Amino acid sequence: MTRPGNLTIERALALARHSDSPDHYTRLLYSPAHRAASAQIQAWMREAGMTVRVDSVGNVIGRYEAATKGAKTLLFGSHFDSVRNGGKFDGNLGILAPIECVAEMNARGERAAVAVEIAAFSDEEGARFATGFLSSKSLVGQFDRAWLDRCDAAGVSLRDAMRDAGLDPEAAGKDALDPAQLAGYVELHIEQGPVLLDAGLPLGVVTTISAGNRHTLTVKGVAGHAGTVPMKMRHDALTAAAEMVLVIEKRAGAGALVATVGILRVHEGSSNVIPGHVDFTLDIRAGDDATRRAAEDDIFTACEVIAKQRGVVLTRVRQSESKVVRCSEAMQLRIAEAITAAGVEARRLPSGAGHDAMMLAEICETGMMFVRCGAGGVSHNPAETVSVEDAGLAVRALLELIRRFPPAA
Amino acid sequence: MTRPGNLTIERALALARHSDSPDHYTRLLYSPAHRAASAQIQAWMREAGMTVRVDSVGNVIGRYEAATKGAKTLLFGSHFDSVRNGGKFDGNLGILAPIECVAEMNARGERAAVAVEIAAFSDEEGARFATGFLSSKSLVGQFDRAWLDRCDAAGVSLRDAMRDAGLDPEAAGKDALDPAQLAGYVELHIEQGPVLLDAGLPLGVVTTISAGNRHTLTVKGVAGHAGTVPMKMRHDALTAAAEMVLVIEKRAGAGALVATVGILRVHEGSSNVIPGHVDFTLDIRAGDDATRRAAEDDIFTACEVIAKQRGVVLTRVRQSESKVVRCSEAMQLRIAEAITAAGVEARRLPSGAGHDAMMLAEICETGMMFVRCGAGGVSHNPAETVSVEDAGLAVRALLELIRRFPPAA
Repeated sequence: MTRPGNLTIERALALARHSDSPDHYTRLLYSPAHRAASAQIQAWMREAGMTVRVDSVGNVIGRYEAATKGAKTLLFGSHFDSVRNGGKFDGNLGILAPIECVAEMNARGERAAVAVEIAAFSDEEGARFATGFLSSKSLVGQFDRAWLDRCDAAGVSLRDAMRDAGLDPEAAGKDALDPAQLAGYVELHIEQGPVLLDAGLPLGVVTTISAGNRHTLTVKGVAGHAGTVPMKMRHDALTAAAEMVLVIEKRAGAGALVATVGILRVHEGSSNVIPGHVDFTLDIRAGDDATRRAAEDDIFTACEVIAKQRGVVLTRVRQSESKVVRCSEAMQLRIAEAITAAGVEARRLPSGAGHDAMMLAEICETGMMFVRCGAGGVSHNPAETVSVEDAGLAVRALLELIRRFPPAA
Repeated sequence: MTRPGNLTIERALALARHSDSPDHYTRLLYSPAHRAASAQIQAWMREAGMTVRVDSVGNVIGRYEAATKGAKTLLFGSHFDSVRNGGKFDGNLGILAPIECVAEMNARGERAAVAVEIAAFSDEEGARFATGFLSSKSLVGQFDRAWLDRCDAAGVSLRDAMRDAGLDPEAAGKDALDPAQLAGYVELHIEQGPVLLDAGLPLGVVTTISAGNRHTLTVKGVAGHAGTVPMKMRHDALTAAAEMVLVIEKRAGAGALVATVGILRVHEGSSNVIPGHVDFTLDIRAGDDATRRAAEDDIFTACEVIAKQRGVVLTRVRQSESKVVRCSEAMQLRIAEAITAAGVEARRLPSGAGHDAMMLAEICETGMMFVRCGAGGVSHNPAETVSVEDAGLAVRALLELIRRFPPAA
């Protein structure tokens, strides 16, 4: 084995070259770059001695058999799609580090008491179709067929995009995993925050995963000529939306939560036209559901008041919802033991970001391991980094986890 | 002659079918719909007995000779491009009503003391390349060659778009009009405001045309994960821009001016990413230059303060500038007499919107006639309307203007 972690980091950098943009790393579901990344992951899985299948929504699943037939499966996984102009380790790390583990075991002719599967999820961020956790929801039998009609910014439906990618939309979500075969699910992910960095620790055990809701808000005002309609006669959809954006920011800052308007679009915008139609997204998360719900209530009430005062019409749609998920105590303990066995302290911490693990937790014992995020804890940003040393420790800890994992009852 | 105005309104509705969108009327410079509209206008000009030329930037210019050789030319004109989802009469009316006049004269075998030319300007709104008055600037010898490198939203340069439209970018702007040949310029346009509507009058004489500047402001913050970066640690480019948008609205409302943010873009926006890069346009106009300048100073100072407080970087570029233009007193008088001769009161009023007339005023006696705008004075909006009766009165008044126009000295 070369220096642990080297392979993972090198591959993360190589994989990021499969990007929708020549300038930065963006990989949206079923784009040409996404398909190329899928093919590359499949090749690396095979090289590590795994058999590979691609499921109905484009998830790539590699399998490395156990020492004995009929053993249960320990599933690892994370996603290989990205946000626009994202970080190269977000998602990809949780695919590539387990592949490095299996490659190491395969090179030694080593088998564990459990079969190891690695799921490379095709869509977690949902940046193309405003879906959240499409892939892992499909794996746990919660694929929503209404998604097939959703369109991307270019007007292409998910149904057509699946066909273009060689997948059958009619089959989507019909090949969920069988929970009876699973010993558990473990997701390795960069922390995407500054907690481990500030503590000087490379690895952590996730306790809970924050709840998050996504909404789309639409403001309809009255378009008009920028030179002729007096300020007092306007029903400007953009200035109304701007006031709402600031209300959201202020309310989130006053509570134990975060809220983000990540997309805002002025429809048919021209510099000399008063905007008549604006929509924007709201992503809102808190460590507990009640905190989030209270903030949502306040925000939507305030936005309605703004709309009424300005004579514009506000509508909103909840795009996705997720509740606070607590990682399995047993899996937290296994992950902590594995980290300790790798020679470092196992710090417990919550996850502010959502992860596919939230979905898998519905069908099996689920845990998450965090790797320290460099650059001040920045993620969803090209500055996101993971060191080779930290990746190496993650690979060692995952190997400890696999080797210690008992044949499940 | 059928009922005056009928032909103009019917043709305005027919011409609007040449649209970049199947759902509404949008016609951007050199699009396929724009080229089809150009061909249609040429056909109608020829049908009216005019000779037609297309100039270096795609302006369509029809000519109807005077009674005597060597007479000067009375130029009419307006634009046939549009804003996105615009009104069907904005621009087009000032092309189609003069064509109806010439068709009427031609049917009677009638010639005036001046030659009549009608210029259908290819680009006034500048919605595709953020150019303002490209066509009329070209006609007055002020085509800016730097425009050729400007790109549209799809990354296509003006240079390439000209080539695609069969025009030679090297020749652009090199065929300016000869001022010595011009007796004057008259632009007929819908008012795009409620003044004539409120006064119960169909036609008006424009006194001054408001000054307007266009700027682009760019805000660079720090992109980050929507779930993990605490509100207090954020440098959100969108919330900063939202605060600026509201400052602009407030300052404009406090003075005798209008200011509009018509385009706002979140670059690489994803619902779960804190925006790191936003840009927006500012269109600001006032009846006098000092009022506008004072408001610009206040707005930019306030935006700088917001940027500093939020730890984001603000840059701005002035895209275009225009000063208050006063219509020629002589031409105002001629237009008023023509309106009176058509049997209606000639109300004088300023124009809040900018028009190609601002450019032509630099090389010849220039005036504008306004037609009442229906639907509460709404323009740059699909609800924009002009009645057949009002269009008919405009045609009559323009015919009076042409017939009364003296052979210029």
